[in-house]
Amino acid sequence: MEFFFKPRGIALVGASSNPNKGGNSILTNLVRGFKGPIYPVNPRYDEIGGLACYPSVLDVPDPVDLAIVFVGAEMTLKAVRECAQRGLRGVMIQSAGFAESGQQGRQLQAELQAIRRDTGLRLWGPNCMGLVDGVNRQVFSFVSPSIWDEGLVPGRVSLVVQSGMLSAGFLIDIMTHGTMGISKACSIGNKVDVDECDLLQYLVEDPDTGCIGMYLESIADGRRFLDICRRCDKPIVVLKGGKSKKGAAAALSHTASIAGNRAVVSGALAQAGVIEAQGFMQLIDLSRTLAVYPEIKVKNRPPRIAVLTFSGGAGIVSSDFIERHGLELADLGAAAKNDLQEVFPEWMPVSNPVDLWPAIERKGPDVAWGRAFNAVFADPGVDAVFFHVFVGGFSGSYELSSIAKIAQAGNKPVFGWLLGKQTEAHSFMMRASEAGIPVFREIPRAVECMAAALKRKKGL
Amino acid sequence: MEFFFKPRGIALVGASSNPNKGGNSILTNLVRGFKGPIYPVNPRYDEIGGLACYPSVLDVPDPVDLAIVFVGAEMTLKAVRECAQRGLRGVMIQSAGFAESGQQGRQLQAELQAIRRDTGLRLWGPNCMGLVDGVNRQVFSFVSPSIWDEGLVPGRVSLVVQSGMLSAGFLIDIMTHGTMGISKACSIGNKVDVDECDLLQYLVEDPDTGCIGMYLESIADGRRFLDICRRCDKPIVVLKGGKSKKGAAAALSHTASIAGNRAVVSGALAQAGVIEAQGFMQLIDLSRTLAVYPEIKVKNRPPRIAVLTFSGGAGIVSSDFIERHGLELADLGAAAKNDLQEVFPEWMPVSNPVDLWPAIERKGPDVAWGRAFNAVFADPGVDAVFFHVFVGGFSGSYELSSIAKIAQAGNKPVFGWLLGKQTEAHSFMMRASEAGIPVFREIPRAVECMAAALKRKKGL
Repeated sequence: MEFFFKPRGIALVGASSNPNKGGNSILTNLVRGFKGPIYPVNPRYDEIGGLACYPSVLDVPDPVDLAIVFVGAEMTLKAVRECAQRGLRGVMIQSAGFAESGQQGRQLQAELQAIRRDTGLRLWGPNCMGLVDGVNRQVFSFVSPSIWDEGLVPGRVSLVVQSGMLSAGFLIDIMTHGTMGISKACSIGNKVDVDECDLLQYLVEDPDTGCIGMYLESIADGRRFLDICRRCDKPIVVLKGGKSKKGAAAALSHTASIAGNRAVVSGALAQAGVIEAQGFMQLIDLSRTLAVYPEIKVKNRPPRIAVLTFSGGAGIVSSDFIERHGLELADLGAAAKNDLQEVFPEWMPVSNPVDLWPAIERKGPDVAWGRAFNAVFADPGVDAVFFHVFVGGFSGSYELSSIAKIAQAGNKPVFGWLLGKQTEAHSFMMRASEAGIPVFREIPRAVECMAAALKRKKGL
Repeated sequence: MEFFFKPRGIALVGASSNPNKGGNSILTNLVRGFKGPIYPVNPRYDEIGGLACYPSVLDVPDPVDLAIVFVGAEMTLKAVRECAQRGLRGVMIQSAGFAESGQQGRQLQAELQAIRRDTGLRLWGPNCMGLVDGVNRQVFSFVSPSIWDEGLVPGRVSLVVQSGMLSAGFLIDIMTHGTMGISKACSIGNKVDVDECDLLQYLVEDPDTGCIGMYLESIADGRRFLDICRRCDKPIVVLKGGKSKKGAAAALSHTASIAGNRAVVSGALAQAGVIEAQGFMQLIDLSRTLAVYPEIKVKNRPPRIAVLTFSGGAGIVSSDFIERHGLELADLGAAAKNDLQEVFPEWMPVSNPVDLWPAIERKGPDVAWGRAFNAVFADPGVDAVFFHVFVGGFSGSYELSSIAKIAQAGNKPVFGWLLGKQTEAHSFMMRASEAGIPVFREIPRAVECMAAALKRKKGL
């Protein structure tokens, strides 16, 4: 599989000089990031953007082990056969019009399968968006080249997404909102050959990947998939689409997938140590949390949380969700209470959730928050910290990186909930993501992700 | 209660010229929005910011019927007694240090209660943040005056929030993110007198309020509260904090509330036609949806949804949630299918969810989306439309206001799910909110809100 991720050279069949065409976007993306030689293939051009253009993949010189094919479905077979003939090792077929599109497409896809069988050539796709790699800064995809300017943010999460449009929209959304950066995002489409198991196996062994998040409409080889999950120490989060009757029908027409029974799938995933998500943003939130905290030493009791808040109401709702998810509010020790009482007004006894507002009024936000973080980090009865921040108005100058450092050093994970003016909230999200602190916009989601990280039974 | 919302004149006891003090923020906010006379009260000044300042509320001239009190807890009793003596009708006590803060505070609060009983003076608070009115543009609160520049967005939702800090942070967050505008936001604190029932009753009759959202830690008079809810046609959404054991303990120390049993409260709310939320953002999302669609004519069968998407995967996950929430995917009629097939490639049979990507590629986004909206709006088998939009890259120039108009005219509600580059997603949220189309960042939340609006049994 390595030649899909680190090819020595890439032939692009269907390269175009028309900036409105996908074949041009792919080329632009390759030029922008790929360090090896790039060979545009299109009999209508001698060169595109200064690169020599070849009439056929058969004419492409060494070194080359991967082709990206983006031509009409009916022209794909010939191109793929020539890739085999040329001795390539893999082809990413990004064209649509195969099994997802009716009888004729199914026939074409069956012929792709035959080529794979006869030649040993590995095929990724068709009907997919390829690969975006934030760490190695490579985009093998017709995703809009604006992705480079909109911040191709590197991160520790790798995604496998059985949906083309979604993976592109998704990536630009999460990277520009400061939600998370990305290691490898793989759009797998119809899975004529390369499937979720192949990619999962590769990502399990990939040192750049800390957590694997997957959106799947079908799981081709359930037994192999669950085996890989069971043996893997890295966190794996799966969103399984097509669990309802009509959803399954839609999955059939989308990527020609047979979706499988809902309860059976969920039970099997849980047994294999996989964390299941229900929605896309939840998939991302769980994945980015587990990428930050993949190995928490769980004690033999429910994890105990200290809540630092600016709002009694938010503390109360947090308490409700902490109980609901099988976590506990920590009973603060005498040392922590004494430390905190010094910055609180006398009339306010310190308890958990720690409502910092009176201390902020009295001592200012820097002193109040600094004291609070130090006190709960030092308290042996506290396993993790959930802080609430309102940016704009009355927040301290949070030194996110130093909080993250203390958190990592003491194996005491920190999670944040954020309210605030849009511009400042966005900037805080970006900084928190960079510092490696999972911050959320909703308390229930924050506690859910906290529970997923603190109660995970694998990777110890 | 009218004098709290539309006072003829306001005395501010504890007015300050120091911009770091809450007593200055309140004054600045009053000057910025309140049209009637404002009387700062503070024996240390002759004037503040050009306004004559009075040594005591007893010296304030007519017209005046409301005082806002923001002085130390121990000085509050004297000030409130003088308000009664001066013949005022209501006092908003925004100071903290009462029943939430220990024995001495409880004693002070009991004395406030006695004043209320002896004089008939209505008391709002203490330990609260007062009132923000986005429609009449009045801020009776120590919330940072930056709220005016951060966009005091008018809307149809009124909020009652039993938490001071939260209500302020909340408002700035939701208004600057384009999530929603606000009619009246009432922060009620310790509820020594004016409570959720008084405010609910007022808001039920308030023509500026289309939907009422409440965060409550306790419900003082459950029977009266449920009675008002049952008789009310406007949608009411309630988030009840303190439902866990430790959450209830935190509620006691926060606003001295006794929280009540979780299952009992939830059952009673549901029976009275109240929609219950679990988290703050969910409270807001449900409230803003029901404010847009307060009166949907439900047919005697599950509501049928057309899904317009740019992503097969998103359509599948939507289908799963539509089934889970007791809605149905609409079977498109022949007319709608024929209309749509004209913009689709031949190989792609039109079905619901309608995956528009092939049509967008073929005809461009404007034609594809326009045709799709018209087809499903005209289809009698479609009760509501759920559209997915990716802004930035390959979206059409959505004419949100005309979509909203068709939706309202045909009593065919529209709901959106949004992915996209942060800046463009934000601008789209702002425009959608203004146009009156509920748009969400997560599919599960969108479908949940859709179900709440389409399946509501009241207000018909």
